[in-house]
Amino acid sequence: MSIAIDIDRLMRRLTELGRIGALPGGGVKRLALSEEDRAGRALVMGWMRELGLEVTRDVIGNCWGVRRGRGAGAPVVMGSHIDTVATGGLYDGSLGVLAGLEVIASLNEAGAATERPVAVAFFTNEEGARFAPDMMGSGVAQGALALDEMLAAVGIDGVSVGEALAASGAAGPAPVRALAPHCYLELHIEQGPVLEAEGLEIGVVTGVQGISWSEFRVLGSSAHAGTTPMAMRRDAGAVAARIAVEAQAIAAEFGPPQVATVGRMRFSPDLVNVVPEEAVLTVDLRHTDEATLRRAEARLRQAAERFAAEAGCRVERRTLARFAPVAFDPALVGRVEAAAQALGLSHRRMPSGAGHDAQMFAPNCPAAMVFVPSKDGLSHNVREYTVPAQLHAGAEVLLAVVCEQAGLVG
Amino acid sequence: MSIAIDIDRLMRRLTELGRIGALPGGGVKRLALSEEDRAGRALVMGWMRELGLEVTRDVIGNCWGVRRGRGAGAPVVMGSHIDTVATGGLYDGSLGVLAGLEVIASLNEAGAATERPVAVAFFTNEEGARFAPDMMGSGVAQGALALDEMLAAVGIDGVSVGEALAASGAAGPAPVRALAPHCYLELHIEQGPVLEAEGLEIGVVTGVQGISWSEFRVLGSSAHAGTTPMAMRRDAGAVAARIAVEAQAIAAEFGPPQVATVGRMRFSPDLVNVVPEEAVLTVDLRHTDEATLRRAEARLRQAAERFAAEAGCRVERRTLARFAPVAFDPALVGRVEAAAQALGLSHRRMPSGAGHDAQMFAPNCPAAMVFVPSKDGLSHNVREYTVPAQLHAGAEVLLAVVCEQAGLVG
Repeated sequence: MSIAIDIDRLMRRLTELGRIGALPGGGVKRLALSEEDRAGRALVMGWMRELGLEVTRDVIGNCWGVRRGRGAGAPVVMGSHIDTVATGGLYDGSLGVLAGLEVIASLNEAGAATERPVAVAFFTNEEGARFAPDMMGSGVAQGALALDEMLAAVGIDGVSVGEALAASGAAGPAPVRALAPHCYLELHIEQGPVLEAEGLEIGVVTGVQGISWSEFRVLGSSAHAGTTPMAMRRDAGAVAARIAVEAQAIAAEFGPPQVATVGRMRFSPDLVNVVPEEAVLTVDLRHTDEATLRRAEARLRQAAERFAAEAGCRVERRTLARFAPVAFDPALVGRVEAAAQALGLSHRRMPSGAGHDAQMFAPNCPAAMVFVPSKDGLSHNVREYTVPAQLHAGAEVLLAVVCEQAGLVG
Repeated sequence: MSIAIDIDRLMRRLTELGRIGALPGGGVKRLALSEEDRAGRALVMGWMRELGLEVTRDVIGNCWGVRRGRGAGAPVVMGSHIDTVATGGLYDGSLGVLAGLEVIASLNEAGAATERPVAVAFFTNEEGARFAPDMMGSGVAQGALALDEMLAAVGIDGVSVGEALAASGAAGPAPVRALAPHCYLELHIEQGPVLEAEGLEIGVVTGVQGISWSEFRVLGSSAHAGTTPMAMRRDAGAVAARIAVEAQAIAAEFGPPQVATVGRMRFSPDLVNVVPEEAVLTVDLRHTDEATLRRAEARLRQAAERFAAEAGCRVERRTLARFAPVAFDPALVGRVEAAAQALGLSHRRMPSGAGHDAQMFAPNCPAAMVFVPSKDGLSHNVREYTVPAQLHAGAEVLLAVVCEQAGLVG
């Protein structure tokens, strides 16, 4: 039996979904549970029904379409999301959902049956761009987040998730945890520069980096930049700069995959000739190993306290976000790798630097991900792009692993 | 003959002028050529006339009142300014002008005559809080700034100096450079913490530090904080932090009186999980020695370029302001010191860390300044304060030097 991805069909679906919320200069804005998201959901659910899938929606708006198997076992689930950030692209999330539909279409076209059911799912508010936290729908579905709290979460526009679900009609009657996969697979763009830089076609994702977001607030004393000797200053800005440099030093000394980013930095009163009385900065630390991540956090915290003490300042630290690293199922990761190898595709193992719905499934069932390259490493950017041949390769790997896991029958 | 400062009379004038533009919670807002400044000028000119001074105003609104001498020589001039910053205090500038009036009042009261005329002056827009640059009126009066350019300078409210002069009626018919002093003396609050910290009453000001304001703009590339390995980043924020730390290192290594301040720092796009593509910071370097100041500037510039190159970024530097150090007349500085000594006041020589009208006179005539302590080193702050006994001491030093320079006659 010849079962093959039709890349043109996949590209047509990506293009059509990308028209919903399209931005004038390119890119897409389809915030979770917005009018654009509602239209996108309708389009994808229509495609699910056209492909003969049985569509179910749960109380937080997660949606999945199931293709029956010969047996009654748990389904092999392919999933991702169709919401985007405010200046997003065509591929982040949508690729995993529409490649899942393409796997179903190719199975249908070949008249192929599987032992297990095969499902395609999309999850509510993966991006967190309208409502915090991100990965909300999959988190609720897999028991990591409490439904009541999430329904009460208020978005950037003052509307709660519960209200937005009611307004968009996205919710269904299925309870949370109704989707219990045999295994979970997600194809996604890398959203980073590694595969492109190394000239590789497939990333075999071993897990998701742990994420630690801290905010440091340094409190000193404002003073005249000309009349105050250095020894009599309590310069909050100077302490903040040392913390930022220390974050870089930690990443350099720990080595890959440790990364450290100071993305925000603000001085107050922010005047050329006034020593800052307050400085606020954020530090984003990520590592695949929880113990190492904790070591990085502790070293940064201690350094910040030492720098503040040396400058006669105080420093306060608060956690903005914290996720432990997630390791994907070694056996399933091995199957992804074997599939890429068998298809003659160049590949490497790599962690994901960003969060994905797959990590919410990992504690409950075998989960794994397939990455394809991102041009210039760009994502969350209207210039997000992956060439069709690379999308094709990723979808072929997904198809191969699904067929194997679902048990292709004659 | 007994000639003495009446501190109560000086305090009454400080209090009365401080009511014009008084802020609800304390402090004063009397921006240059504003309605409050107009009222302040009227009050001070009224006092000048009450004291029998001949009042003259020039085309940029500088104003001086002259008390005749026995001879026809150039006047001994006491001056400062009555404009304030948006959240200023009662003493910055006003002290020098009103202590000058008090010197005149004490001479009048004693029926004392001098060989040379004695004058009190205030200069337009010393603060630069409404119109840039600061020290504008004294700069024009002494030929350091071009009148035409200054009249065209547009303020923070979109009004030009010329328009504001016309609206406030502050200008007079006298040409620039009409005020040609025999010598220039300015009593001012220190605006810094040194005298208070050392428990001293009088600062004998030896000159004004040179000021170098630079803006560094670092240009890198935005990238995902999770998916971009450290080695593939061009982190503009990390470069900016290193520049800020280097500024501190320069001040530490050069030692006093070198000071370095990074007062402004901004990252773009300023998001927790995005490597900054642009960072802008300002560096304020000051030193009393021009060669040392240039060495500090060169070292910082070279370090910024090295840091940028190491991070794959570009850096642009532009000068926001640059004033060479000013040395006051050694003989006149010596007279100030001798007067403090003779009055039994504790004192030290020190540079001024801030700019003052006196520095505009220094190239054209002997100039010197007297400092009194600032509580907690505060100035440009509604909590600016100096205890009356210290104001009294400063005014006594001013009186003594004026009497000596003007040639007191029996």
